[in-house]
Amino acid sequence: MKPIRFNVDPKEYKHLKVAVEGPIARITLTIPEDGGLRDGYKLKLNSYDLGVDIELADATRRLRFEHPEVSAVAIQSGQDGIFSAGANIFMLQTSGHPHKVNFCKFTNETRCSIEDSLQDSKQYYLAAANGLASGGGYELCLACEEIHLIDDRNSTVSLPELPYLGVLPGTGGLTRLVDKRKVRRDLADLFATVAEGVKGQRAVDWKLVDAVHTASTFHEKVTARLQEIAGDGNPYKGITLDVLKADYADGGAEYKYVNLKINHDSRVATIELTGPDAADGDIPATPSDLGCDWYGLRFWRELDDALLNLRNNYYEIGTVVIQSSGDINNVLKLDNALAEKKDDWFIREVLVEIKRVLKRIDYTSRSFFTLIEPGSCFAGSLFEIALASDRIYMMDHEEEENFVAISTLNDGFFPMGNGISRLNTRFYYEKDSAEKVIAAKDKLLTAAEAMALGIATDTPDDIDWEDEVRIQIEERASFSPDALTGMEASLRFPGPETMETKIFSRLTAWQNWIFTRPNAVGERGALTMYGNVRSPEFDWKRV
Amino acid sequence: MKPIRFNVDPKEYKHLKVAVEGPIARITLTIPEDGGLRDGYKLKLNSYDLGVDIELADATRRLRFEHPEVSAVAIQSGQDGIFSAGANIFMLQTSGHPHKVNFCKFTNETRCSIEDSLQDSKQYYLAAANGLASGGGYELCLACEEIHLIDDRNSTVSLPELPYLGVLPGTGGLTRLVDKRKVRRDLADLFATVAEGVKGQRAVDWKLVDAVHTASTFHEKVTARLQEIAGDGNPYKGITLDVLKADYADGGAEYKYVNLKINHDSRVATIELTGPDAADGDIPATPSDLGCDWYGLRFWRELDDALLNLRNNYYEIGTVVIQSSGDINNVLKLDNALAEKKDDWFIREVLVEIKRVLKRIDYTSRSFFTLIEPGSCFAGSLFEIALASDRIYMMDHEEEENFVAISTLNDGFFPMGNGISRLNTRFYYEKDSAEKVIAAKDKLLTAAEAMALGIATDTPDDIDWEDEVRIQIEERASFSPDALTGMEASLRFPGPETMETKIFSRLTAWQNWIFTRPNAVGERGALTMYGNVRSPEFDWKRV
Repeated sequence: MKPIRFNVDPKEYKHLKVAVEGPIARITLTIPEDGGLRDGYKLKLNSYDLGVDIELADATRRLRFEHPEVSAVAIQSGQDGIFSAGANIFMLQTSGHPHKVNFCKFTNETRCSIEDSLQDSKQYYLAAANGLASGGGYELCLACEEIHLIDDRNSTVSLPELPYLGVLPGTGGLTRLVDKRKVRRDLADLFATVAEGVKGQRAVDWKLVDAVHTASTFHEKVTARLQEIAGDGNPYKGITLDVLKADYADGGAEYKYVNLKINHDSRVATIELTGPDAADGDIPATPSDLGCDWYGLRFWRELDDALLNLRNNYYEIGTVVIQSSGDINNVLKLDNALAEKKDDWFIREVLVEIKRVLKRIDYTSRSFFTLIEPGSCFAGSLFEIALASDRIYMMDHEEEENFVAISTLNDGFFPMGNGISRLNTRFYYEKDSAEKVIAAKDKLLTAAEAMALGIATDTPDDIDWEDEVRIQIEERASFSPDALTGMEASLRFPGPETMETKIFSRLTAWQNWIFTRPNAVGERGALTMYGNVRSPEFDWKRV
Repeated sequence: MKPIRFNVDPKEYKHLKVAVEGPIARITLTIPEDGGLRDGYKLKLNSYDLGVDIELADATRRLRFEHPEVSAVAIQSGQDGIFSAGANIFMLQTSGHPHKVNFCKFTNETRCSIEDSLQDSKQYYLAAANGLASGGGYELCLACEEIHLIDDRNSTVSLPELPYLGVLPGTGGLTRLVDKRKVRRDLADLFATVAEGVKGQRAVDWKLVDAVHTASTFHEKVTARLQEIAGDGNPYKGITLDVLKADYADGGAEYKYVNLKINHDSRVATIELTGPDAADGDIPATPSDLGCDWYGLRFWRELDDALLNLRNNYYEIGTVVIQSSGDINNVLKLDNALAEKKDDWFIREVLVEIKRVLKRIDYTSRSFFTLIEPGSCFAGSLFEIALASDRIYMMDHEEEENFVAISTLNDGFFPMGNGISRLNTRFYYEKDSAEKVIAAKDKLLTAAEAMALGIATDTPDDIDWEDEVRIQIEERASFSPDALTGMEASLRFPGPETMETKIFSRLTAWQNWIFTRPNAVGERGALTMYGNVRSPEFDWKRV
């Protein structure tokens, strides 16, 4: 299969149009049937595959950076009578388990980033369902702050996955019904088993949508509501995001500051990070003048693309080694400058972009080992990548200097999905420990100091380093990939759970299970048999 | 296979001895190799199967009711050098997926009930690991308030499931490491991949155990600590619990107040509940004089046994219809009497027993529909069973009276695993709604009133009732059992998550997934290959 690329050019969007008029943006889905990522299925009825979501994720990011003046965003459909039929069923039927799961994960991340928009970017999303919103189509609505449905006697919202396909709504639908929209659990149960869905006033009464409007008033009412939400918009002027460039030639991906190298034999990838120059920490009076080529933004966009590239194109790479090179003081300088300008819209967008990329690591089902060696620059925001890793190895070198450093950005700027910082997650029940680490900020910490503070897993000396680290990496790569995925998903999120972590744990884990079951994907499973004249056959055992 | 029974006679325990001396009890595991629930595996090294856990669950319940004076409980081993090797691997290898999952679920529930003991019953559990505590053996230790490990250069604690078997520790181990014992996530990661485990001072440093003692001082130190915890014990005098009697003859199980009927053709079970007599609400000055034959205790023990019987012996029964008959006023009288005497030790034990049985419903992966018809007695504690159901149908009868009622016990006496009441879970984000329901307590509510209060899903009239309810039940029974399990697990727990719900959702769902994967259970999977000279073979794709 052709590799999947995430760095799309908005001029080449196939599936959606973005129109900005003053403080209001409209994202219109008009998905061509032949626009699938690969052959073998037709994207009928505005159904989607990963390719559509890649554009949607790109569009929401661009709205933040390029149109920060926008304060209200409508998601709507360009097809009459149909908002979206959700994930394409024939695509799911013909996709392997890893693709299905990674597809759902990315769509979930995009939905969460739409959901973040109000708090993070003062952009309020409204779903304007001018027709049937079914399955993932309705789940896209659920990610918005409010849902308007056309009342034309036909158009329903529905989650038909369970009755039709024997699977769950895979993009947070069940969790958002009860946890976000406060639909009563028994009504949610009823709704999720009624394939034809719910329409009109009942949809409002059950809290499935916020308002219904007749066909003749729909556009007008939605527009009025958008204007009400939008007000005068935000007083910001955007920048242009270029299309991220990468050299994918030799397997992996080489960017300006990030280099993803794939070793197929060992099933280990290396991500090499390059630190900033001193000048990158000089932030001008109008920070957005820095533009998209600035290290502070480009580095994280590159890392994000590298992670997505790894996730979706290299399933067999189970272990990721993270290394860095550069001047640790430059990172501290940049971090402190970011913290100082945190109230500027552009810097705020950069900070929440960093937050999202770091969460991408948390939710990536690969083992991450960060290696800290002389010449590295794991400080602050870059050290946060180490904190997101499963293990941190730091060389205790007898002669060469080898430091890490904490910056003020480690102190709550990048909450995980569970709502708290990685340091507080790490030491969740011992606030003292996290406070001690924060108290050491802006200092260069040796391996012994890092070990004492609990921010290194192990600190082999320079003589043993090569062997010890190699053995750990080889061993990791030898374990059952499934068991590692389950273990990491369990250990990475101690402490509180939020709707977001519920979606990525409870719901996703059940969905993964169901996606492996013969009742869904076996020869006579419901997903396999969809569209067939024969009925599915179930093994009736409850588990 | 022979049906599995949960109502064991303590005189016939095969696997453990319970010794009570003043305020201290000791549960000693001495598991005979040939004591398995079925043939085909030997319970070597104090490894266990469901039969062992059934005794352990029974023993902890009996300690509460029969020996409430006990304030410290040690779990220890009767075998030298070995505490427990955990769940028997050969049992797991030869068990089907539903048995594995239900086995893990029951052991999880037992661990959670051990964990509750301190708060609910003033009984403090201490694990005295006088030898290797491996896998589920160590997880049993993790459920205790503190862990003492012998320091004899051999004895380790370990979670070897991932490296040896390609599965996860299935009884809450990973979650308890990070969320309960506050083991740092990277150390937990390291620990769970080191098959040989960790011993001595390092086990203390990593917080895996609370203390280590040399072999010569182990017994003495543990005893001293038990005495310190126990103090003078609790000033209560226990009752005797009989062995629960049931007629299992005709499929299902008929008890005194509970009748479980199995219909194999429709794959639907009915649980008929009988309400109390008026006299059952007369609680004497010394409530424990009521003994174990009292409705207030027997009813719930019977319902618990019925649920376990259903879960473990009738996998194909996916839908459970709950009905009741009796005088609704008698239930209110009993509930009010329970609430009034809630500070008495015996009544407190009854209340927390009810809490546990209700949680058993929440965690049972079958669809529960409660049907409320004339002559039923769904009030208070019995209505809580309806609140635990996925749907509540109440007949709106034109002529006959049909009521439900709320009692003070619905107001927080029976928290779910998520820490809040079923009413607050039902209306989690709308406290007003829950308060309105509570304000209607002790009143007989019609179908229309119940509907208005949001405590009924639907209220068909008596003419449509038969058809409507039948169609809903038949439809439910026709859906994919896997998808229903995942949906119910997602909708039943809106709102907060706790360590307990994390164990039953995040961890369990991942474990279920892994238990279906060829990398664990395929022909060359790690669990299948355990004990074989050849190595497992993995599909390396990460999902």
